Amino acid sequence: MMRARVHITLKHGVLDPQGKAIANALAGLGFAGVDDVRQGKYIELKLEETDRERARAKVDAMCQKLLANTVIENYRIDLEG
Amino acid sequence: MMRARVHITLKHGVLDPQGKAIANALAGLGFAGVDDVRQGKYIELKLEETDRERARAKVDAMCQKLLANTVIENYRIDLEG
Repeated sequence: MMRARVHITLKHGVLDPQGKAIANALAGLGFAGVDDVRQGKYIELKLEETDRERARAKVDAMCQKLLANTVIENYRIDLEG
Repeated sequence: MMRARVHITLKHGVLDPQGKAIANALAGLGFAGVDDVRQGKYIELKLEETDRERARAKVDAMCQKLLANTVIENYRIDLEG
């Protein structure tokens, strides 16, 4: 049993309207000195796979096929256990 | 200048329909042995603050007031720089 943590973030240069909305809301609440807010996704999953390399390959395939839009998003996979 | 990374995840026991949808879609694509999928948010921001403690307190206040719904969500703050 392994736990995989996947971070999916927009590539640099891709407009991030959610991040912009957060930045504006923070400014409206009086938080100054905040810059460059970017929102991404964070996905945790458990795998029955026990081999680290096979687990990484599997999660990589999941990212390519479903979790990330690789045209505009980057992803990072961290494995544990 | 510091960079803050915030992970916002649903508390245990809170139903996660997005995670469920991902789990079903993965099963439909033929990925077996995947369990307990949870989706959270990942927010990166830059702060002009240079004092670590003050930066943490500021981001903590942002989470309490805007970024997280603390009734159903947990958050974790990582600072860098």
